[in-house]
Amino acid sequence: MEETLDQKAALDRAVALAALGPEFGPNPRVGAVITDPSGRVLAEGFHRGAGTPHAEAAALARALTSGMNVDGATAYVSLEPCNHTGRTGPCSQALVDAGIARVVYAVADPDPRAVGGAQYMAARGVDVVHAPHAQAEAVNRKWLIAMRQGRPYVIAKWAQTLDGKISASDGTSFWITGREAREHVHQLRVRVDAILVGTGTVLVDDPELSARPESVLEPHQPLRAIMGTRSTAGARVWRDENAVALGTHDPEAALATLWEREVRTVIVEGGAAIHTAFLVAGLVDELNVYVAPVLLGTGTQAVADLGIRTMADALRGQDTSLQTLGVDCLVTAHLPKG
Amino acid sequence: MEETLDQKAALDRAVALAALGPEFGPNPRVGAVITDPSGRVLAEGFHRGAGTPHAEAAALARALTSGMNVDGATAYVSLEPCNHTGRTGPCSQALVDAGIARVVYAVADPDPRAVGGAQYMAARGVDVVHAPHAQAEAVNRKWLIAMRQGRPYVIAKWAQTLDGKISASDGTSFWITGREAREHVHQLRVRVDAILVGTGTVLVDDPELSARPESVLEPHQPLRAIMGTRSTAGARVWRDENAVALGTHDPEAALATLWEREVRTVIVEGGAAIHTAFLVAGLVDELNVYVAPVLLGTGTQAVADLGIRTMADALRGQDTSLQTLGVDCLVTAHLPKG
Repeated sequence: MEETLDQKAALDRAVALAALGPEFGPNPRVGAVITDPSGRVLAEGFHRGAGTPHAEAAALARALTSGMNVDGATAYVSLEPCNHTGRTGPCSQALVDAGIARVVYAVADPDPRAVGGAQYMAARGVDVVHAPHAQAEAVNRKWLIAMRQGRPYVIAKWAQTLDGKISASDGTSFWITGREAREHVHQLRVRVDAILVGTGTVLVDDPELSARPESVLEPHQPLRAIMGTRSTAGARVWRDENAVALGTHDPEAALATLWEREVRTVIVEGGAAIHTAFLVAGLVDELNVYVAPVLLGTGTQAVADLGIRTMADALRGQDTSLQTLGVDCLVTAHLPKG
Repeated sequence: MEETLDQKAALDRAVALAALGPEFGPNPRVGAVITDPSGRVLAEGFHRGAGTPHAEAAALARALTSGMNVDGATAYVSLEPCNHTGRTGPCSQALVDAGIARVVYAVADPDPRAVGGAQYMAARGVDVVHAPHAQAEAVNRKWLIAMRQGRPYVIAKWAQTLDGKISASDGTSFWITGREAREHVHQLRVRVDAILVGTGTVLVDDPELSARPESVLEPHQPLRAIMGTRSTAGARVWRDENAVALGTHDPEAALATLWEREVRTVIVEGGAAIHTAFLVAGLVDELNVYVAPVLLGTGTQAVADLGIRTMADALRGQDTSLQTLGVDCLVTAHLPKG
């Protein structure tokens, strides 16, 4: 039996393919489905990460190797085809050259370097349709927010006691949360481009800042970014080239450096001064706070003075969610902008 | 069809009957099932609260009015029959006088005034069996802990921001949590004997301290107990007789006064100094902390200095549970003793 897809089903399929790509990296996750005018699937493809073919190119290549004729066909793409020569050529041109007659895309490309694909193709006689699709947006949520803001998507992450402390008054901080919460952090690190900490954290804890889900070192390791100006020479974060000293206390400058290094999502892991600086600057998109059912009374607060004096001005999370991790919980919230 | 119960089923039934009674009040929740030797149910009863017949008396009375002969019968009771004349006579004697041949009880009575029922009955030829039963323990968990400690069961309750603040630096505290969390507090108040707050809370917030689930004033209102020595004359808590000035800053003395007033479960609602005093004294059995996904940075901490200096000494909750209440969450934890 042959599979034929209508527009909705074809875009659903393109999004499902997109989700097979990696969440980290400078490029969005994209899927493409090529059908003949009756909806019969001729080829599919998805992007496997920076340096590999884009979804459209992968689908066109697949059609070629399997002897499918795509002349006059329709391409369904989860994101607007790029109009830009980067590590690979522009997809807009590849689709036109292949004789694709109709392109349906779900999300407009917010990348200023890549934008213009729809216009390029339309000018060359392709029937180009923008068909918004919630899941297509969701599959690249962080990347899209980063692109639209022109800076990395920032997740502020910390583990604290119920009374908001990240260490006791003698400086001890191991272990506030349990095994499940610590494992969850490793799972999170797999999905980002960089981890940012301050020199204080490096000097006090000498952390590895690696992604080791289930205690296995992940092939993808986020860039280790050290904020601040103190020397941390000899610390474990410098064990290989995948680390950068940002040399600044300014969150905006730190993010600009990371952006140039193609970081699109960064976890800011503290300490408190760093988290406070990012929050005060309005540069936190998402909070990931692991809360242990523990009371300390005194100690270091997770967040210092935010300049907030009255309850009405409190920073209120949106789209919050809660997750139980052993005896601990994870509170996830997005922070409103502006 | 006649219902016949084995021992397990009869005790399950007694516990289910017990749970029909109120959670508040000086007396435990108790259910009783009387069967003939073949397990046929002759009568049932449960305790409806202080001043009403005990479960055993209720079941015996029910047997009498329905013409059932309980001579030689078995009584299954979720708690050891009392041996004490209080507002009603001793159940141990009533069971013996009624000719009950066998008594199976699930939990030994920890009340020093009421204890001895099993011994009394055994000495008079009744076959007395102690058959431990987890749900029978659970149905009176707070009351049993109170009785065994000889002081009220203490729930420390507060609402805080994610960073552990109960008010902003200008003193504003309305509203940290949302409607669902506030409604949950009213549901909790229905199930306790007293609410304790400090004079500071009365002077600053002038709270009603009433149980108003779904905005309807509950028939059972917990005693309003005010700790501290400052005058709070004219405050709303003094609107009727159901309030007491404890006249002390000492948590132990406060609980002793409440115990004498037959308070078995008390919610300590703050402020921070009161919570801290109870925690430092080791007098908190359970934490109920409502956490809003909100950051303040500065403000009043929920908990002040507990005398804890290092992480290893942190107060760790046990048997924790998490509940989502709108955008907020409720963290419930028991605190270890000793």
